[in-house]
Amino acid sequence: MITGIDHIGIAVESLETRIPFYRDVLGMGEPEIEEVAEQKVRVAVFYTPHGRIELLEPTSPESPVAAFLEKKGEGIHHLALGSDAIEAQIAGVQEAGLRMIDATPRDGAGSAKIAFVHPKSTGSVLLEFCRR
Amino acid sequence: MITGIDHIGIAVESLETRIPFYRDVLGMGEPEIEEVAEQKVRVAVFYTPHGRIELLEPTSPESPVAAFLEKKGEGIHHLALGSDAIEAQIAGVQEAGLRMIDATPRDGAGSAKIAFVHPKSTGSVLLEFCRR
Repeated sequence: MITGIDHIGIAVESLETRIPFYRDVLGMGEPEIEEVAEQKVRVAVFYTPHGRIELLEPTSPESPVAAFLEKKGEGIHHLALGSDAIEAQIAGVQEAGLRMIDATPRDGAGSAKIAFVHPKSTGSVLLEFCRR
Repeated sequence: MITGIDHIGIAVESLETRIPFYRDVLGMGEPEIEEVAEQKVRVAVFYTPHGRIELLEPTSPESPVAAFLEKKGEGIHHLALGSDAIEAQIAGVQEAGLRMIDATPRDGAGSAKIAFVHPKSTGSVLLEFCRR
């Protein structure tokens, strides 16, 4: 079952440049900074009572986020939906003849298990299932 | 104060084409359909325990969503943050020398009051403040 919007991932060139808007102008408090080696990104996580905002800065030109920035520039990168049964969600996508990027869950930021649906199957939305 | 992620707006060419993915594949249930005349869109709203997913279909070539589709194609259109003090949030943006699209709140879907920050002030994120 989809339990809600877990987080929104936003691609940024530089955490240092973009953090002040969320922290100071929006008043969202100090973010947690985390490095996700597998995705080659540094992540600034802002917590709210309903969902997180994650700013994603590539740490290498090989990061998928670097490729996104190159192609589309800064902006909203992905939508992550919380799920209490990520394997069933993946099976549902595949049974509908649609395509997963991750056919099995892998590690995401904040010890989450995650899996991305292919944007070609969603109307160009990079959609993540996320279980904490 | 930012109270959470209120909703994500997703630009689609056709509600009929895109609703089945969210309703049937993701199992999010039947959406509510609403027309927002001011924005020239039909909206399909999927509710979750934490945040809504809104699919946005333009009803006219003059809709801002039609312009978005023309330029960028289907995909995530905006991020709406819930706020319990939308005027204070607007004032905070302006005091930081940043730009609002809506300097005063206006009517959005579901009887919300909304105001958009200009993407040039946010790192190309179309950010909405939303008070229900």
